[in-house]
Amino acid sequence: LTNTTSDARSARVTEVVVFGASGYSGLELLDILARHPAVRVVAASSDRWAGEEVAERLRAWPTGLRFAPHAEVLEATRPGQVALLAMPAEGSAELAPALLERGLRVIDLSGAFRLRDPAAYEAWYGFRHPAPGLLDEAVYGLPELFEVPADARLVANPGCYATATILACAPLLAHHLLVPGSPLVADGKSGVTGAGRSVKEELMFPEVQENLRAYRVGRHQHTPEVEQALEEVSGRAVRLSFTAHLIPMRRGILVSVYAPLHRGVGAADVERAYRETLGGRPFIAWVDRPPETALVRGTNFVELHAQVDARTRTVCAFAAIDNLGKGAAGQAVQNLNVLLGLPEGTGLLPGVSADG
Amino acid sequence: LTNTTSDARSARVTEVVVFGASGYSGLELLDILARHPAVRVVAASSDRWAGEEVAERLRAWPTGLRFAPHAEVLEATRPGQVALLAMPAEGSAELAPALLERGLRVIDLSGAFRLRDPAAYEAWYGFRHPAPGLLDEAVYGLPELFEVPADARLVANPGCYATATILACAPLLAHHLLVPGSPLVADGKSGVTGAGRSVKEELMFPEVQENLRAYRVGRHQHTPEVEQALEEVSGRAVRLSFTAHLIPMRRGILVSVYAPLHRGVGAADVERAYRETLGGRPFIAWVDRPPETALVRGTNFVELHAQVDARTRTVCAFAAIDNLGKGAAGQAVQNLNVLLGLPEGTGLLPGVSADG
Amino acid sequence: LTNTTSDARSARVTEVVVFGASGYSGLELLDILARHPAVRVVAASSDRWAGEEVAERLRAWPTGLRFAPHAEVLEATRPGQVALLAMPAEGSAELAPALLERGLRVIDLSGAFRLRDPAAYEAWYGFRHPAPGLLDEAVYGLPELFEVPADARLVANPGCYATATILACAPLLAHHLLVPGSPLVADGKSGVTGAGRSVKEELMFPEVQENLRAYRVGRHQHTPEVEQALEEVSGRAVRLSFTAHLIPMRRGILVSVYAPLHRGVGAADVERAYRETLGGRPFIAWVDRPPETALVRGTNFVELHAQVDARTRTVCAFAAIDNLGKGAAGQAVQNLNVLLGLPEGTGLLPGVSADG
Amino acid sequence: LTNTTSDARSARVTEVVVFGASGYSGLELLDILARHPAVRVVAASSDRWAGEEVAERLRAWPTGLRFAPHAEVLEATRPGQVALLAMPAEGSAELAPALLERGLRVIDLSGAFRLRDPAAYEAWYGFRHPAPGLLDEAVYGLPELFEVPADARLVANPGCYATATILACAPLLAHHLLVPGSPLVADGKSGVTGAGRSVKEELMFPEVQENLRAYRVGRHQHTPEVEQALEEVSGRAVRLSFTAHLIPMRRGILVSVYAPLHRGVGAADVERAYRETLGGRPFIAWVDRPPETALVRGTNFVELHAQVDARTRTVCAFAAIDNLGKGAAGQAVQNLNVLLGLPEGTGLLPGVSADG
Repeated sequence: LTNTTSDARSARVTEVVVFGASGYSGLELLDILARHPAVRVVAASSDRWAGEEVAERLRAWPTGLRFAPHAEVLEATRPGQVALLAMPAEGSAELAPALLERGLRVIDLSGAFRLRDPAAYEAWYGFRHPAPGLLDEAVYGLPELFEVPADARLVANPGCYATATILACAPLLAHHLLVPGSPLVADGKSGVTGAGRSVKEELMFPEVQENLRAYRVGRHQHTPEVEQALEEVSGRAVRLSFTAHLIPMRRGILVSVYAPLHRGVGAADVERAYRETLGGRPFIAWVDRPPETALVRGTNFVELHAQVDARTRTVCAFAAIDNLGKGAAGQAVQNLNVLLGLPEGTGLLPGVSADG
Repeated sequence: LTNTTSDARSARVTEVVVFGASGYSGLELLDILARHPAVRVVAASSDRWAGEEVAERLRAWPTGLRFAPHAEVLEATRPGQVALLAMPAEGSAELAPALLERGLRVIDLSGAFRLRDPAAYEAWYGFRHPAPGLLDEAVYGLPELFEVPADARLVANPGCYATATILACAPLLAHHLLVPGSPLVADGKSGVTGAGRSVKEELMFPEVQENLRAYRVGRHQHTPEVEQALEEVSGRAVRLSFTAHLIPMRRGILVSVYAPLHRGVGAADVERAYRETLGGRPFIAWVDRPPETALVRGTNFVELHAQVDARTRTVCAFAAIDNLGKGAAGQAVQNLNVLLGLPEGTGLLPGVSADG
Repeated sequence: LTNTTSDARSARVTEVVVFGASGYSGLELLDILARHPAVRVVAASSDRWAGEEVAERLRAWPTGLRFAPHAEVLEATRPGQVALLAMPAEGSAELAPALLERGLRVIDLSGAFRLRDPAAYEAWYGFRHPAPGLLDEAVYGLPELFEVPADARLVANPGCYATATILACAPLLAHHLLVPGSPLVADGKSGVTGAGRSVKEELMFPEVQENLRAYRVGRHQHTPEVEQALEEVSGRAVRLSFTAHLIPMRRGILVSVYAPLHRGVGAADVERAYRETLGGRPFIAWVDRPPETALVRGTNFVELHAQVDARTRTVCAFAAIDNLGKGAAGQAVQNLNVLLGLPEGTGLLPGVSADG
Repeated sequence: LTNTTSDARSARVTEVVVFGASGYSGLELLDILARHPAVRVVAASSDRWAGEEVAERLRAWPTGLRFAPHAEVLEATRPGQVALLAMPAEGSAELAPALLERGLRVIDLSGAFRLRDPAAYEAWYGFRHPAPGLLDEAVYGLPELFEVPADARLVANPGCYATATILACAPLLAHHLLVPGSPLVADGKSGVTGAGRSVKEELMFPEVQENLRAYRVGRHQHTPEVEQALEEVSGRAVRLSFTAHLIPMRRGILVSVYAPLHRGVGAADVERAYRETLGGRPFIAWVDRPPETALVRGTNFVELHAQVDARTRTVCAFAAIDNLGKGAAGQAVQNLNVLLGLPEGTGLLPGVSADG
């Protein structure tokens, strides 16, 4: 009943390499993949923890695999493997072309391949993109809204805030329920693992605990990613004012979206838009109360809810995800499943197996 | 150097009675008043803790005062005292008239006397107001924007979310920087003491820790209070879409306001509006970064900041307060100082004394 | 590859009933069992949430199962099923005999069947045991130290503090490394879910956050359970002074044990004792640094470490577990696996399947 | 009514210089001293924040004082001032002699002058003491147990864990209630500010939140400090096995002490020992329940409690303090008051003034 038992099954096991395995998203990838019935992690790169057993950081890790230096892992990659990149965007932008050239398929968890416009990287990410030619080929991996072809070579896994914001807004835009031309307002709130394992004074426990603040007001790099996706969904220009907030918790993102509703649109129209756009998708949970991050913690689910504030003609829409789940590693495995021709929930949902 | 040393000084000491002293705001009142040079707390009502020494709950409490049953405290009140009410709104609405009749002055920390329209109480608070005749007399105690006469008999201390939202918005409205007619969007985030000492499953530690959710979407009772105040400031109708969020921390409120800016308004205009409307006030701190609740914790300060998101023509304004400080007990003492003819910072700011 | 796919496999699926499914341990049981390849949860009792879908509380729950009233679930039980009881001890003591009579096997997560001496229940639990005749039959389900027969009808799943304390002490006692007759001192520290989903003022978020306190000093009900187990391990009388502490976190237990070492015993002897007593067990991790609860969170693992304080001839031993994992639901599933003749790690460890 | 009003009073104001003002203890010193009626902070050294206004970090700071570089502050010191050193031990050991030479009196919050034996610094602190000649002159500033002469030039402010441990143990030892020769066991638990403002991966929010671990098992540098103090109290050799634990909270220390009681000693003897040794001291609160750190947060109080575990003949004693209050800055101000001939509670207790 596992991925290691019989020859027939091992024939179908795909080898996976994780780059940046010591970050929060990288470790979460390992944690999910340990349970995945159709893949085997053959290498986990981390310069920081090189030489240490994965099991020292992830108690339930089933093999003797050790973290290995980045360069060494790259060197050992082989065609047919899938590489999962959990690194800063600039590093991914350099690494992905090399991996494609070596015959691997790549799922990149950074922002390096999410935007189609190379110029946007200078404006929002602060670096000149080293491989602009790949931006058109890269597939934006949000399977609830966009097709991810099973033969894609390069998947750009969406950002955490972006995933929540896009899913909260897409039904409203797809059904043209909002006043056209009005900007969307999204107030994002994230746990601290969203900032990665960066050692900064402002992320020390005593600075974060019992504290609350906004950051990157109006200039968060997920903004153009959301606009690009929602323009594709709606066929119209979309302007988003996005503000991120740091919440004293480890995991979880809640995005609260506020937008002016078209005259005559009511609560039933709103709920119908969500059901029609996203209903039936395995990881979407429409709930009739405000979503809670605790209820999606450790999962690949999205809780969605929207309410009409009739006094002000505002729709208030909410999406809760685990920033390391649907916001990063969970969604990457969902995309991996698509690439492997497996049910999207394989390894992510109990009761969903590699053979459907 | 204290309030108890000389006859000359004790002549100026005012007797204060705290009702609802076992709630978080009530205890905070006691904590602040213990240090106040010109008042003496003569009674603290709490049915829950009746008979216990205040010092058992507040280590630094300097006297042998015990919590006493509500009815007993009421009975013992005397003309000339000031009553501070830290109770649920419905209880305050009943109690305040009785205290006024007994010759006390009243500062009410609940919502019972904040709205001028009696009908609004049924709509937003869920009870029929028992003393609608007092709503006109009650003074809204936000001294940064509205005059609080020193001879006021009844002060309605503003709500925690309302204080932050009003202060974040007032400069923008007073200077007519916003697109008229557009609703204001305010995303409020509060620590758990904002919910009071209510014993509810949803406020248990394991339910709140590592969790995040919205509540009272579009129907929080501070909404009409904010609209009423901002209409007075701006002279125009104001519509607010307010959504509250529960944050896994004890104390602190951050309100993030989003509103469409008038064409041609820039960052300098925005900053000038804040300086002109609120500059020079002792508890207002304009900061050039997003406010942090940790920096106002345990104080009566407000940190204010606003930024122009030029891409979307949105102003993003932020106010951080301590919900138990400027959001409740601190502001009540500030109002008390006004009633007593003292500098506003007496007992609240180091270096500000009862004689100025 | 899952438990639901083929006829051949479903033949081996055991039906499980969870009583007390809305508590923290009960929900954790459901969460683990959802992934278990050889069992199917056919009922989940909860008077509190009766009628609600399990998936509303546990997003990834794969079926349409609803919580059902306790009495109704009991009524529907059938011979051959296994009942997992996640209820207060007094309720379990009443329910278990009825279930055994109906032909079920029972794993009880409460303390109701852990002590052999009926009189101890009055002293430590405050009730007279209603089924003292079952105390001898009940098997103490700590498979690392005691044999759990595959045909046991009634398994008493160890307490959370007890599990950590026993595992931290057993090697020292089994190898007679301690000064005989000296009491063991254990300082237990637990996250708040250890207190169950009880709605009490002292467990509200504002009371627990940024707070720390001892409770049940010297009279915690896990004390006799630890002494009984360690006496069996060592063949001598054992006295334990145990003090519990409430830590501001959701999950996790760390027990720190302090005991005087026999003259001449050194660090190598201590480490050897742990390796000989517990080495090779699938959920035991001896670590060469102080254990961290975060590293066992969400798992059935125990991190163990001991150090010799040579200056004082004291051994300092530490065990970290997840109170809901190895301290409750995880260990219950481990015991369930033993009853079903499965590898202990089935459903608990990635890569361990129902067929080994 | 304040420290700034009249000439007569300002004549008595002492100038204070804070070194290391940007650490958690340094900032807390500033916060307390802002309210102190008889001192004026004339300089605050911090290389990190040099040039910034103190009020940017401490909202209620009443003056325009700016943090200044360490060397510059040293240069500007003048005879008659008191220097408060909130720096790492090695830095204090270098700085204090220079300040004494310049005619200042010094209260050092580090461990640099707490131990009388110079050799102990190499063993426990890892550096060779640069001014061993001062160790005899330095006064250990725990006024509840040891006299602090008003004319002391150099006060060694006790460590945070040491303060709690010594106060929890001293009454038991002073009254000879323990089995002689048995080591004391102390299990210390501290919030994260106890580690100082050090930017380390292990103190990042995601590493600490929902985690719990021991550190410096048996080799914490406060151990010899506690032994030295308790030997002075008891007149006998004292051996302490001390283990520190990191708790996911900002502030607060709880030390739990376990020791074998002399035959025949009962609860009444224990309580009497505490009352006789520490009763009547302004910051000591004997409580009849386990102490809570939340109840001493932001104060200079100690909550003490002890209980006899009669089954094991163990006394379980507990002390809760605020590590930044009685564990650092509060106690430093208490010592400052002694040096200035003021009541110990001046600036620390409401209602205690500079003239008693």
